[in-house]
Amino acid sequence: MRQSFDETTDPSYGPRHLPLIRRAMADQGLDGFIVPHEDEHQNEYLPAANDRLAWATGFTGSAGAAMIMTDKAALFVDGRYALQAPAQVDQDMFEIKDLMDGGVPAWIEATAKAGQVLGYDPRLHSPDSLARLEAAAVKAGASMMAVSDNPLDAAWGTNRPAQPAAPVVPHTLQYSGEASAEKRRRIGLAMNADAAVLTAPASIAWLFNIRGGDVIRSPLPLGQAILRKDGSADLFLDPAKITPGLAKWLDADVALRDPSDLQGALAKLSNQIVSIDPAQSSAWYFSQLETAGARIYRMPDPTALPRAIKNAVEIAGARAAHSRDGAALTNFLHWIVNQNGPIEELAAVAQLEAFREATGVLKDLSFDTIAGAGPNGAVVHYHPTIKTSRAAQDGDLLLVDSGGQYLDGTTDVTRTVSIGTPSEEMRQRFTLVLKGHLALARVRFPAGITGSLLDALARGPLWAQGLDYDHGTGHGVGSYLGVHEGPQGISKRAGGAPLQPGMIVSNEPGYYKTGAYGIRIENLQVVTQPTEIAGGERAMLGFETLTLAPIDRKLIAVCLLTAEERAQLDAYHARVLAEIGPQLGADARAWLEQVCAPL
Amino acid sequence: MRQSFDETTDPSYGPRHLPLIRRAMADQGLDGFIVPHEDEHQNEYLPAANDRLAWATGFTGSAGAAMIMTDKAALFVDGRYALQAPAQVDQDMFEIKDLMDGGVPAWIEATAKAGQVLGYDPRLHSPDSLARLEAAAVKAGASMMAVSDNPLDAAWGTNRPAQPAAPVVPHTLQYSGEASAEKRRRIGLAMNADAAVLTAPASIAWLFNIRGGDVIRSPLPLGQAILRKDGSADLFLDPAKITPGLAKWLDADVALRDPSDLQGALAKLSNQIVSIDPAQSSAWYFSQLETAGARIYRMPDPTALPRAIKNAVEIAGARAAHSRDGAALTNFLHWIVNQNGPIEELAAVAQLEAFREATGVLKDLSFDTIAGAGPNGAVVHYHPTIKTSRAAQDGDLLLVDSGGQYLDGTTDVTRTVSIGTPSEEMRQRFTLVLKGHLALARVRFPAGITGSLLDALARGPLWAQGLDYDHGTGHGVGSYLGVHEGPQGISKRAGGAPLQPGMIVSNEPGYYKTGAYGIRIENLQVVTQPTEIAGGERAMLGFETLTLAPIDRKLIAVCLLTAEERAQLDAYHARVLAEIGPQLGADARAWLEQVCAPL
Repeated sequence: MRQSFDETTDPSYGPRHLPLIRRAMADQGLDGFIVPHEDEHQNEYLPAANDRLAWATGFTGSAGAAMIMTDKAALFVDGRYALQAPAQVDQDMFEIKDLMDGGVPAWIEATAKAGQVLGYDPRLHSPDSLARLEAAAVKAGASMMAVSDNPLDAAWGTNRPAQPAAPVVPHTLQYSGEASAEKRRRIGLAMNADAAVLTAPASIAWLFNIRGGDVIRSPLPLGQAILRKDGSADLFLDPAKITPGLAKWLDADVALRDPSDLQGALAKLSNQIVSIDPAQSSAWYFSQLETAGARIYRMPDPTALPRAIKNAVEIAGARAAHSRDGAALTNFLHWIVNQNGPIEELAAVAQLEAFREATGVLKDLSFDTIAGAGPNGAVVHYHPTIKTSRAAQDGDLLLVDSGGQYLDGTTDVTRTVSIGTPSEEMRQRFTLVLKGHLALARVRFPAGITGSLLDALARGPLWAQGLDYDHGTGHGVGSYLGVHEGPQGISKRAGGAPLQPGMIVSNEPGYYKTGAYGIRIENLQVVTQPTEIAGGERAMLGFETLTLAPIDRKLIAVCLLTAEERAQLDAYHARVLAEIGPQLGADARAWLEQVCAPL
Repeated sequence: MRQSFDETTDPSYGPRHLPLIRRAMADQGLDGFIVPHEDEHQNEYLPAANDRLAWATGFTGSAGAAMIMTDKAALFVDGRYALQAPAQVDQDMFEIKDLMDGGVPAWIEATAKAGQVLGYDPRLHSPDSLARLEAAAVKAGASMMAVSDNPLDAAWGTNRPAQPAAPVVPHTLQYSGEASAEKRRRIGLAMNADAAVLTAPASIAWLFNIRGGDVIRSPLPLGQAILRKDGSADLFLDPAKITPGLAKWLDADVALRDPSDLQGALAKLSNQIVSIDPAQSSAWYFSQLETAGARIYRMPDPTALPRAIKNAVEIAGARAAHSRDGAALTNFLHWIVNQNGPIEELAAVAQLEAFREATGVLKDLSFDTIAGAGPNGAVVHYHPTIKTSRAAQDGDLLLVDSGGQYLDGTTDVTRTVSIGTPSEEMRQRFTLVLKGHLALARVRFPAGITGSLLDALARGPLWAQGLDYDHGTGHGVGSYLGVHEGPQGISKRAGGAPLQPGMIVSNEPGYYKTGAYGIRIENLQVVTQPTEIAGGERAMLGFETLTLAPIDRKLIAVCLLTAEERAQLDAYHARVLAEIGPQLGADARAWLEQVCAPL
C-alpha cells in the first residue's frame, strides 16, 4: 500500500547521468555530493521533477540515498529493496549498500579523504540527518558544504520535468467544516510562539482549506506558510497554481505571496520565537532562521494534531465517502465471483478503479492498488506490474488493498478473497486475523490511551498460535488528504499521540506465508466520543467502523469464533447490507444478501 | 502494598525541630534549606536514621519534600497524602502544597528573594531534580549552595537513631545460582565504560551475592561499589556490618573498603569513562566525578537488567518459595472461613504473619500487609492501624495483599475474599477483574514486547463495562530482594524494558468502589522461554504462574466466563490443589479440595 513501482527508469541512468553530475560537482569544487530520496517537501510521494535519486541511479524505491564521489559512488537502500535495487541500477557505477549498515555516514567515515569537500543541498536534509553526516565528515577529516545551486539539478537541466503546478482550489466548508480563520486563530493561540513555519503540504492544505494536485495520489499543494500567533499568515504558492477564485477564498488575514519572497520573510523573523518541526522542515529553514536571529523552538507541526482530529462535518463526509466507496468495492467483489477462469492481478486493479470511477466523483486513488494473488499476496509492499502480474487460480487467495480520494473523504480498505476453495490452513489463519480485527474494532478504552497500547488486541489471536505479522496494525488517515498521517497510530512501537474522538485509524492485521499467500483485513474506524456504559462508572471511547464491504465468509472457520465475535460480524454484515445494498444493481444486491447473511 | 504508615511521629515535630534546623542553617549562613524525602541510597523504604522529612515535619509518607526558609516553610506532598499530611503536620509551621502544583521549584521561584542562599545536601538529590531547583533559584535571583554538613543532621544531633548496621552475609550459590565473579565479568565486558559506580543497594546485593538488613522489608545492605570492566571491584561497606565469613566469600578481585575511602576512590577515576545512573545516584557522585576529571556516561545501572532476568536456580527458588508461601496463605484463607463473627483487619494481618512464620524460614515480610475490609479495601495504599482497623462483616469483601521474604525468593500476592454472601455487583466486578487477570496470565507474545503493550489485556474486560483501576497492572519482583524492581513493568505508561525469559512480574488488576469495597487479584508470574506452538511458525514467550492459592469461587459469576477462561481457572485450581494440598493439615486440605473443584 506504499510506493508505486516506476518502470520508467532503467539501469542506463547511472552511466548516462553520473558524468553530468560529476561535471557540475567539479564546477563547484566538490569532491562528493549527497543525493537523498527526500525532496524539498518531505512527502510520501515525489513529483517526477523531484525524484533526483531515480534520475541519478535508476532506483525508484520510496527511500534511500546516494553518495557520489569523483571516482566512485554508492546507493543505500533498505531490506525491502534488496531485489529491486540491483535490477534497476548499474552496479559498475554504484556500489549497493544496506541503509541499516551505518548508511551514508558510515560510508563517508570510511571513504572520504582528509581535506575533501562534500556538498549537500540543505533543502533536502533534516537537521538531524545533516548533523550525522557532518559528524562523519569531521571524523574523516573532510568537510560538508551547503550548495545554493544543486549540481544534480544543473546536470539534469532542460531534461528535468517541470515542477508540478496543479491548480490550487478552495476546499469548501461543506467538506472542511471549519473556516481557515478559525483554525488559524485557535492554533495561533495555542502555539506558544510568535510564529510557526509550516512546510508540510498537508498542513498547508488543511490550515487554509485548499487542495492541489502536485503530488500523485493525494490532493496536496506544494507550498509554505508562516502562521503568526494572532492567526494571520503568509502563504507562499507558485502564482501559476493560483486559480481565479482562490484569493477571494482566502480571507483578509492571509497574504498570498510568491515563493521567491520566502527567504526574505524568514529573514524578518529576527528576535521572534519561531516554532518549526525538525521532522517536517529541512536544514535550510533552520539555517535561514538562525541567520535571521530568530529564537527557534523545535516543536511538532502545530497543525498535525488538530488535523488528525476530524470535526463533525469531516466525519459525516468520511461516512458518505466510505458508503460510496464500499459500494464500488462490493461491485468489484461481486465481479470477482462472477469470473470464470483465472483473474489477472492487473485486470483486477483496472476493474476496481473502473468501479470507483463510475461513482462519478472519484478525484484519484489513495495509492496504487495492491492486488496480490497467491504468493504475491505475501509480499507486503507488492504492486502488480506487467512483469509480475499473476493470475489468481482456483485455490489461491487474492489480497486487494486499495482506496479512493473523494472531496468528502479518503478511503483505504483491504479485502482478501478466496478463488475457488480455500485450504483449511487458509481458513484457520484468516479467522485468526479476523478475530484480532474484531477485537480492535469493538474495544472500549478511557481517554489518554495511545494506539500502541491496543496493538496486542489485534495480534493476540495470532500470537496464541505462534504467528504474527511484520507491519503496524493501524495508521492515521487524512480527510481528502494523505492516506497516511500522524500523530496517532497502532503498532508495537511505543509512543504516538493518545487516541482522541474524531481521529481516523486503520485496523489492518494480516498474516503472510512466504511463497504461498497473504491475508489482510482492513477497515478504517473513527474514534468515538466518550460515552457512558450502562452499569459503568467512567465514560469510554471506542471506534465506529467506517469501511463497509463484506468479509469473505468462505474464509471463516466459524467454530473458531466466540459467540460475541459471531454476533459482532453478523451485525457488521447487516450494516453493510443495509447501507451498501440499495446502491447496487439487482444481481450484486442479491449476491450481497447471501454473503451478508448471519453466519 | 507500599509504605508503612508510621505512628511514631506527631504534629509537635515541626514546632520542636524547626527552630533547631533554622539555628543550624544560620550557622552556615543559609536563608533556606531543602529537605527531600529521599536519602543517600534512593531506597523505597528509609531507615529511621534517614527519615529526615519525618523528623523535620512529622509527615511519614513515602514521597515528598520540605523547603525551610528562615521565616516560613512548606511541605510538598502528592494527592495520595491529601488527608495524611494535614493530620501529621502542624500547619502553623508548614504550608502544605501539592507536589503536582509545580513542587519545590515553583515555590522557590515565587518565594525566594534576590541574593538569598538556599542550601541543599548533594547526597540527597538526583542531578535532574537539582537542575530544576537551580533553574528556579536563578529565576528568583537567589543561589543554591551545596552543604558538606547537613544542617538538619546537625540539629538532629544525638537524638538521631544510629545508622543501620545489620550484618552482611553471603547469599550462597544455592540461592543466587551464579558466582559474583561471573556476574561481574559479563557485566564488565558489556558495559562500554572503564568503570561503573553502583549505589543502589539492590545492585550491590545482587552483584556480590550478599544480603543485609539495613532497610525494612528487604534484605538490602547499604553500600557502594566501583566495578571495573575487567570484573574487579571495590566494595564499600561499613566495617561494623561485616560478618566473619564475608571477606572469604568475596573473591580475590573484590576489595572490601571502608566507606570513608569512597571519595578518594572516585577521585582516582580521572580520565576514565565512568558509567553512572542519574536515576539511582545523587548529584554528589556526579560532582565528585566531575572534580576528578572523569568522563561521565549517564547510563542505566548495568546490573538492573541482568538482575531482573532470573537464572534457573533463582526460578527454581521462586517456585519453592511460592509453594511454601501459598500453603501459608491457604491456611490463612481457611482460617478466615472458620471464623464465627467479624474479622478484624489487624487480627487478620497477625494471623497471616503467624502462618508465614510457621514455615520456619521466613526472613521478613515483603512489605507491610494490606488488609482492607469493606470501604478500606477501596483505598489502594491502605494499611490497617489501630485507629483505622475495621472488622469485616457479613457482606463485606476483605482484600489482603501480602508477601514474604525467603532466602529462595520474594513473594507478593493479593486475594479478595467475601465474608458471608457477596452482592451481585461484587460478583460481576470480581469476575471482570478475574477475566483480565486470566488474559494476562495466558497471553503468548513474541520477543521484543514491553509490558505496556500487554496492559490493555488486563483492563479490557473492565473497560468494556465502563470501569478501570488507577494503578499499574504489574511490577518486577526481586529474588530475595526488593518487591518492586525494574526495568520491566506492565502499565499504561509507554516504555520499560521488553519482557525477557526469567523476568518475574506481578499480574494484579483490580477494581475499587470508593466507600464500599476493593477487589484485587494478584499472582506473580515468570516469563517463559520462547517455545514452539503446534502449527505455528514463531516461537512465543509466555508466563508461568508462580503464585499458588485458591481464588474465591463465591465471587465468580461463572456465566460471564468463556469456556476457555473456565478451563484456565480450573487448571490453575487443580495445580493449587496438587501442590498446596499435601502441605496442609487434614481440615484445610479437605476445604481446599472443595474450593479447587472445577467450576
